[in-house]
Amino acid sequence: MAPRKEQEIFRATLGLLVERGYEGLTVEGVAERSGVNKTTIYRWWPSKAALLAAALIEADALAVDPPDTGSLRGDLEALVREISALLTESPSAEIAVAALGAAVHQPELAEATRHFFADRLAREQEVFERARRRGELREDADPMLIMDLLGGAVWLRAVFRGLPLGDDFAAEAVRTVLDGAA
Amino acid sequence: MAPRKEQEIFRATLGLLVERGYEGLTVEGVAERSGVNKTTIYRWWPSKAALLAAALIEADALAVDPPDTGSLRGDLEALVREISALLTESPSAEIAVAALGAAVHQPELAEATRHFFADRLAREQEVFERARRRGELREDADPMLIMDLLGGAVWLRAVFRGLPLGDDFAAEAVRTVLDGAA
Repeated sequence: MAPRKEQEIFRATLGLLVERGYEGLTVEGVAERSGVNKTTIYRWWPSKAALLAAALIEADALAVDPPDTGSLRGDLEALVREISALLTESPSAEIAVAALGAAVHQPELAEATRHFFADRLAREQEVFERARRRGELREDADPMLIMDLLGGAVWLRAVFRGLPLGDDFAAEAVRTVLDGAA
Repeated sequence: MAPRKEQEIFRATLGLLVERGYEGLTVEGVAERSGVNKTTIYRWWPSKAALLAAALIEADALAVDPPDTGSLRGDLEALVREISALLTESPSAEIAVAALGAAVHQPELAEATRHFFADRLAREQEVFERARRRGELREDADPMLIMDLLGGAVWLRAVFRGLPLGDDFAAEAVRTVLDGAA
Protein backbone atom coordinates (compact mmCIF):
# COMPACT_ATOMS: atom_id res chain seq x y z
CA MET A 1 0.00 0.00 0.00
CA ALA A 2 1.26 3.43 -0.86
CA PRO A 3 -0.22 6.85 -1.50
CA ARG A 4 -0.29 8.25 -5.00
CA LYS A 5 2.83 10.28 -5.77
CA GLU A 6 4.81 8.26 -3.23
CA GLN A 7 8.09 8.66 -5.12
CA GLU A 8 7.53 12.44 -5.41
CA ILE A 9 7.11 12.54 -1.62
CA PHE A 10 10.30 10.53 -1.08
CA ARG A 11 12.24 12.62 -3.58
CA ALA A 12 11.15 15.82 -1.79
CA THR A 13 12.05 14.28 1.60
CA LEU A 14 15.56 13.26 0.57
CA GLY A 15 16.15 16.50 -1.34
CA LEU A 16 15.26 18.58 1.71
CA LEU A 17 17.46 16.40 3.93
CA VAL A 18 20.44 17.11 1.66
CA GLU A 19 19.71 20.84 1.33
CA ARG A 20 18.65 21.68 4.89
CA GLY A 21 19.80 18.83 7.12
CA TYR A 22 17.57 16.81 9.42
CA GLU A 23 16.65 19.85 11.55
CA GLY A 24 15.54 21.75 8.46
CA LEU A 25 13.49 18.85 7.10
CA THR A 26 9.77 19.29 7.84
CA VAL A 27 6.62 17.54 6.70
CA GLU A 28 5.33 20.99 5.70
CA GLY A 29 8.36 21.43 3.44
CA VAL A 30 7.84 17.99 1.90
CA ALA A 31 4.16 18.78 1.29
CA GLU A 32 5.02 22.04 -0.42
CA ARG A 33 7.73 20.57 -2.63
CA SER A 34 5.87 17.39 -3.58
CA GLY A 35 2.48 19.06 -4.04
CA VAL A 36 0.86 16.51 -1.73
CA ASN A 37 -1.38 17.63 1.12
CA LYS A 38 0.30 17.60 4.54
CA THR A 39 -2.54 15.62 6.14
CA THR A 40 -2.19 12.96 3.43
CA ILE A 41 1.51 12.60 4.24
CA TYR A 42 0.77 12.35 7.97
CA ARG A 43 -1.87 9.70 7.29
CA TRP A 44 0.82 7.45 5.84
CA TRP A 45 3.80 8.40 8.03
CA PRO A 46 3.08 9.68 11.53
CA SER A 47 6.33 11.63 11.94
CA LYS A 48 9.19 13.04 9.90
CA ALA A 49 11.41 10.24 11.25
CA ALA A 50 8.97 7.62 9.94
CA LEU A 51 8.77 9.43 6.60
CA LEU A 52 12.53 9.60 6.26
CA ALA A 53 12.97 5.94 7.24
CA ALA A 54 10.47 4.96 4.52
CA ALA A 55 12.17 7.24 1.98
CA LEU A 56 15.62 5.76 2.67
CA ILE A 57 14.31 2.23 2.16
CA GLU A 58 11.81 2.78 -0.67
CA ALA A 59 13.07 5.72 -2.74
CA ASP A 60 14.06 4.93 -6.32
CA ALA A 61 17.24 7.05 -5.83
CA LEU A 62 18.67 4.49 -3.38
CA ALA A 63 17.18 1.36 -4.93
CA VAL A 64 19.49 -1.62 -5.38
CA ASP A 65 18.53 -4.86 -7.08
CA PRO A 66 20.38 -7.86 -5.70
CA PRO A 67 22.42 -9.11 -8.66
CA ASP A 68 22.21 -12.67 -10.02
CA THR A 69 25.28 -13.21 -12.20
CA GLY A 70 25.53 -16.97 -11.69
CA SER A 71 28.41 -16.89 -9.19
CA LEU A 72 28.99 -15.52 -5.70
CA ARG A 73 32.10 -13.73 -6.94
CA GLY A 74 30.19 -12.04 -9.73
CA ASP A 75 27.30 -11.14 -7.42
CA LEU A 76 29.57 -9.64 -4.74
CA GLU A 77 31.55 -7.66 -7.32
CA ALA A 78 28.26 -6.30 -8.68
CA LEU A 79 27.15 -5.39 -5.14
CA VAL A 80 30.42 -3.57 -4.45
CA ARG A 81 30.05 -1.66 -7.72
CA GLU A 82 26.45 -0.77 -6.80
CA ILE A 83 27.50 0.47 -3.35
CA SER A 84 30.39 2.39 -4.95
CA ALA A 85 28.05 4.09 -7.39
CA LEU A 86 25.61 4.87 -4.58
CA LEU A 87 28.35 6.54 -2.52
CA THR A 88 30.06 8.44 -5.33
CA GLU A 89 27.28 9.50 -7.73
CA SER A 90 24.63 12.18 -7.39
CA PRO A 91 22.08 12.35 -5.80
CA SER A 92 22.55 9.13 -3.81
CA ALA A 93 26.02 10.09 -2.50
CA GLU A 94 24.71 13.36 -1.06
CA ILE A 95 21.72 11.58 0.46
CA ALA A 96 23.77 8.76 2.03
CA VAL A 97 26.34 11.13 3.44
CA ALA A 98 23.72 13.59 4.74
CA ALA A 99 21.72 10.78 6.37
CA LEU A 100 24.73 9.18 8.07
CA GLY A 101 26.26 12.51 9.03
CA ALA A 102 23.02 13.68 10.67
CA ALA A 103 22.28 10.28 12.26
CA VAL A 104 25.26 10.89 14.50
CA HIS A 105 23.35 13.55 16.44
CA GLN A 106 19.78 12.35 15.91
CA PRO A 107 18.78 9.11 17.62
CA GLU A 108 15.57 8.81 15.61
CA LEU A 109 17.46 9.25 12.36
CA ALA A 110 20.02 6.67 13.55
CA GLU A 111 17.06 4.31 13.96
CA ALA A 112 16.09 5.02 10.33
CA THR A 113 19.59 4.29 9.03
CA ARG A 114 19.63 1.02 11.00
CA HIS A 115 16.39 0.03 9.30
CA PHE A 116 18.00 0.92 5.98
CA PHE A 117 21.02 -1.35 6.56
CA ALA A 118 18.84 -4.19 7.91
CA ASP A 119 16.59 -3.91 4.86
CA ARG A 120 19.59 -4.03 2.52
CA LEU A 121 20.98 -7.12 4.22
CA ALA A 122 17.59 -8.85 3.99
CA ARG A 123 17.55 -8.20 0.23
CA GLU A 124 21.14 -9.44 -0.14
CA GLN A 125 20.40 -12.76 1.60
CA GLU A 126 19.33 -14.38 -1.67
CA VAL A 127 22.85 -13.88 -3.04
CA PHE A 128 24.23 -15.88 -0.11
CA GLU A 129 21.50 -18.53 -0.25
CA ARG A 130 22.28 -19.22 -3.90
CA ALA A 131 26.02 -19.30 -3.07
CA ARG A 132 25.40 -21.89 -0.33
CA ARG A 133 23.39 -24.06 -2.70
CA ARG A 134 26.25 -23.86 -5.21
CA GLY A 135 28.78 -24.68 -2.46
CA GLU A 136 30.68 -21.40 -2.95
CA LEU A 137 30.77 -20.37 0.70
CA ARG A 138 32.37 -21.79 3.86
CA GLU A 139 29.70 -23.47 6.02
CA ASP A 140 30.18 -20.99 8.87
CA ALA A 141 30.64 -17.87 6.72
CA ASP A 142 28.53 -14.94 7.95
CA PRO A 143 26.75 -12.86 5.26
CA MET A 144 26.49 -9.81 7.54
CA LEU A 145 30.23 -9.88 8.18
CA ILE A 146 30.97 -10.22 4.45
CA MET A 147 28.74 -7.25 3.62
CA ASP A 148 30.20 -5.20 6.51
CA LEU A 149 33.71 -5.83 5.17
CA LEU A 150 32.83 -5.00 1.56
CA GLY A 151 30.39 -2.14 2.19
CA GLY A 152 32.59 -0.72 4.93
CA ALA A 153 35.62 -0.74 2.63
CA VAL A 154 33.73 1.39 0.08
CA TRP A 155 32.74 3.88 2.81
CA LEU A 156 36.27 4.11 4.13
CA ARG A 157 37.98 4.46 0.77
CA ALA A 158 35.48 6.72 -1.03
CA VAL A 159 33.94 8.80 1.77
CA PHE A 160 36.40 8.92 4.69
CA ARG A 161 39.67 8.82 2.73
CA GLY A 162 38.09 10.68 -0.19
CA LEU A 163 40.07 8.55 -2.64
CA PRO A 164 38.86 7.37 -6.05
CA LEU A 165 37.83 3.74 -6.35
CA GLY A 166 39.97 2.32 -9.16
CA ASP A 167 38.53 0.06 -11.84
CA ASP A 168 39.75 -3.03 -10.01
CA PHE A 169 38.57 -2.04 -6.52
CA ALA A 170 35.49 -4.30 -6.58
CA ALA A 171 37.38 -7.31 -7.95
CA GLU A 172 40.28 -6.90 -5.49
CA ALA A 173 38.04 -6.37 -2.47
CA VAL A 174 35.95 -9.44 -3.32
CA ARG A 175 39.05 -11.47 -4.08
CA THR A 176 40.47 -10.67 -0.64
CA VAL A 177 37.22 -11.52 1.17
CA LEU A 178 36.61 -14.75 -0.76
CA ASP A 179 40.17 -16.06 -1.23
CA GLY A 180 42.07 -14.35 1.59
CA ALA A 181 45.13 -12.11 1.61
CA ALA A 182 47.36 -14.65 3.35
CA MET B 1 58.17 20.75 18.28
CA ALA B 2 55.07 21.50 20.28
CA PRO B 3 53.81 24.23 22.61
CA ARG B 4 53.56 23.56 26.32
CA LYS B 5 50.14 22.20 27.26
CA GLU B 6 49.70 20.77 23.76
CA GLN B 7 47.51 17.90 24.98
CA GLU B 8 45.29 20.33 26.95
CA ILE B 9 44.80 22.31 23.73
CA PHE B 10 43.91 19.16 21.78
CA ARG B 11 41.57 17.95 24.53
CA ALA B 12 39.76 21.29 24.51
CA THR B 13 39.57 21.25 20.70
CA LEU B 14 38.04 17.78 20.50
CA GLY B 15 35.74 18.39 23.46
CA LEU B 16 34.33 21.52 21.83
CA LEU B 17 33.92 19.69 18.52
CA VAL B 18 31.79 17.04 20.26
CA GLU B 19 29.76 19.56 22.28
CA ARG B 20 29.22 22.31 19.72
CA GLY B 21 29.98 20.84 16.31
CA TYR B 22 32.49 22.23 13.83
CA GLU B 23 30.60 25.53 13.43
CA GLY B 24 30.65 26.06 17.20
CA LEU B 25 34.35 25.24 17.54
CA THR B 26 36.46 28.41 17.77
CA VAL B 27 40.08 29.10 18.63
CA GLU B 28 38.75 31.55 21.25
CA GLY B 29 36.79 28.74 22.88
CA VAL B 30 39.83 26.45 22.84
CA ALA B 31 41.95 29.21 24.40
CA GLU B 32 39.40 29.74 27.15
CA ARG B 33 38.96 26.05 27.97
CA SER B 34 42.66 25.13 27.80
CA GLY B 35 43.93 28.25 29.56
CA VAL B 36 46.38 28.90 26.72
CA ASN B 37 46.60 32.33 25.12
CA LYS B 38 44.81 32.61 21.76
CA THR B 39 47.86 34.13 20.06
CA THR B 40 49.98 31.21 21.24
CA ILE B 41 47.53 28.78 19.65
CA TYR B 42 47.49 30.76 16.40
CA ARG B 43 51.30 30.79 16.36
CA TRP B 44 51.28 26.98 16.15
CA TRP B 45 48.15 26.40 14.08
CA PRO B 46 47.09 29.13 11.66
CA SER B 47 43.39 28.15 11.50
CA LYS B 48 40.83 26.11 13.36
CA ALA B 49 40.98 23.53 10.56
CA ALA B 50 44.75 23.16 11.07
CA LEU B 51 44.27 22.91 14.84
CA LEU B 52 41.60 20.23 14.48
CA ALA B 53 43.68 18.25 11.97
CA ALA B 54 46.59 18.26 14.43
CA ALA B 55 44.31 17.29 17.33
CA LEU B 56 42.84 14.34 15.42
CA ILE B 57 46.30 13.01 14.60
CA GLU B 58 48.18 13.86 17.82
CA ALA B 59 45.65 13.76 20.68
CA ASP B 60 46.19 11.07 23.30
CA ALA B 61 42.45 10.28 23.18
CA LEU B 62 42.76 8.88 19.64
CA ALA B 63 46.28 7.47 19.95
CA VAL B 64 46.86 3.97 18.63
CA ASP B 65 50.10 2.03 18.92
CA PRO B 66 50.63 -0.40 16.07
CA PRO B 67 50.66 -3.81 17.75
CA ASP B 68 53.54 -6.29 17.46
CA THR B 69 52.21 -9.67 18.57
CA GLY B 70 54.55 -11.81 16.48
CA SER B 71 52.05 -12.68 13.73
CA LEU B 72 50.03 -10.79 11.13
CA ARG B 73 46.86 -12.47 12.40
CA GLY B 74 47.54 -11.36 15.96
CA ASP B 75 48.47 -7.84 14.86
CA LEU B 76 45.35 -7.42 12.70
CA GLU B 77 43.09 -8.76 15.46
CA ALA B 78 44.68 -6.28 17.86
CA LEU B 79 44.14 -3.46 15.33
CA VAL B 80 40.47 -4.39 14.88
CA ARG B 81 40.01 -4.43 18.66
CA GLU B 82 41.70 -1.02 18.91
CA ILE B 83 39.45 0.43 16.20
CA SER B 84 36.43 -1.17 17.88
CA ALA B 85 37.32 0.40 21.23
CA LEU B 86 37.93 3.74 19.53
CA LEU B 87 34.49 3.69 17.91
CA THR B 88 32.51 2.38 20.89
CA GLU B 89 34.14 3.88 23.99
CA SER B 90 34.07 7.41 25.36
CA PRO B 91 35.40 9.98 24.51
CA SER B 92 36.92 8.66 21.28
CA ALA B 93 33.61 7.34 19.88
CA GLU B 94 31.96 10.76 20.25
CA ILE B 95 34.99 12.47 18.70
CA ALA B 96 35.23 10.10 15.73
CA VAL B 97 31.54 10.26 15.01
CA ALA B 98 31.40 14.07 15.42
CA ALA B 99 34.42 14.54 13.15
CA LEU B 100 33.14 12.27 10.40
CA GLY B 101 29.58 13.54 10.69
CA ALA B 102 30.68 17.16 10.36
CA ALA B 103 33.26 16.39 7.64
CA VAL B 104 30.36 15.62 5.34
CA HIS B 105 29.45 19.32 5.12
CA GLN B 106 32.85 20.90 5.79
CA PRO B 107 35.47 20.47 3.06
CA GLU B 108 38.29 21.68 5.34
CA LEU B 109 37.29 19.20 8.03
CA ALA B 110 37.09 16.46 5.38
CA GLU B 111 40.71 17.34 4.57
CA ALA B 112 41.57 16.87 8.26
CA THR B 113 39.90 13.45 8.43
CA ARG B 114 41.77 12.40 5.26
CA HIS B 115 45.03 13.35 6.96
CA PHE B 116 43.94 11.30 9.97
CA PHE B 117 43.32 8.16 7.90
CA ALA B 118 46.55 8.62 5.91
CA ASP B 119 48.50 9.04 9.15
CA ARG B 120 46.94 5.87 10.59
CA LEU B 121 47.81 3.87 7.49
CA ALA B 122 51.40 5.14 7.59
CA ARG B 123 51.69 3.93 11.20
CA GLU B 124 50.16 0.56 10.32
CA GLN B 125 52.66 -0.08 7.50
CA GLU B 126 55.15 -1.69 9.89
CA VAL B 127 52.62 -4.44 10.65
CA PHE B 128 52.51 -5.28 6.94
CA GLU B 129 56.27 -4.96 6.45
CA ARG B 130 56.90 -7.49 9.22
CA ALA B 131 54.21 -9.76 7.74
CA ARG B 132 55.91 -9.64 4.33
CA ARG B 133 59.27 -10.51 5.86
CA ARG B 134 57.61 -13.47 7.62
CA GLY B 135 55.91 -14.52 4.37
CA GLU B 136 52.42 -14.16 5.84
CA LEU B 137 50.94 -12.07 3.05
CA ARG B 138 50.23 -12.64 -0.63
CA GLU B 139 52.83 -10.83 -2.75
CA ASP B 140 50.24 -8.51 -4.29
CA ALA B 141 48.15 -7.97 -1.15
CA ASP B 142 47.33 -4.28 -0.57
CA PRO B 143 47.62 -2.99 3.03
CA MET B 144 45.25 -0.08 2.36
CA LEU B 145 42.59 -2.45 1.06
CA ILE B 146 43.03 -4.77 4.06
CA MET B 147 42.66 -1.86 6.49
CA ASP B 148 39.68 -0.47 4.55
CA LEU B 149 37.94 -3.85 4.78
CA LEU B 150 38.66 -4.32 8.50
CA GLY B 151 38.24 -0.72 9.65
CA GLY B 152 35.21 -0.23 7.41
CA ALA B 153 33.56 -3.35 8.86
CA VAL B 154 33.87 -1.91 12.38
CA TRP B 155 32.29 1.38 11.23
CA LEU B 156 29.45 -0.38 9.49
CA ARG B 157 28.66 -2.81 12.29
CA ALA B 158 29.15 -0.56 15.31
CA VAL B 159 28.25 2.90 14.04
CA PHE B 160 25.92 2.53 11.04
CA ARG B 161 24.08 -0.65 12.11
CA GLY B 162 24.42 0.26 15.79
CA LEU B 163 25.01 -3.40 16.66
CA PRO B 164 27.33 -4.70 19.39
CA LEU B 165 30.62 -6.21 18.30
CA GLY B 166 30.68 -9.69 19.75
CA ASP B 167 33.77 -11.12 21.42
CA ASP B 168 34.71 -12.98 18.25
CA PHE B 169 34.18 -10.09 15.82
CA ALA B 170 37.89 -9.27 15.49
CA ALA B 171 38.93 -12.90 15.04
CA GLU B 172 36.18 -13.63 12.50
CA ALA B 173 36.79 -10.46 10.48
CA VAL B 174 40.55 -11.15 10.31
CA ARG B 175 39.95 -14.81 9.51
CA THR B 176 37.75 -13.84 6.56
CA VAL B 177 40.24 -11.29 5.21
CA LEU B 178 43.29 -13.56 5.64
CA ASP B 179 41.81 -16.98 4.82
CA GLY B 180 38.78 -16.11 2.70
CA ALA B 181 35.09 -16.95 3.05
CA ALA B 182 34.97 -19.22 0.00
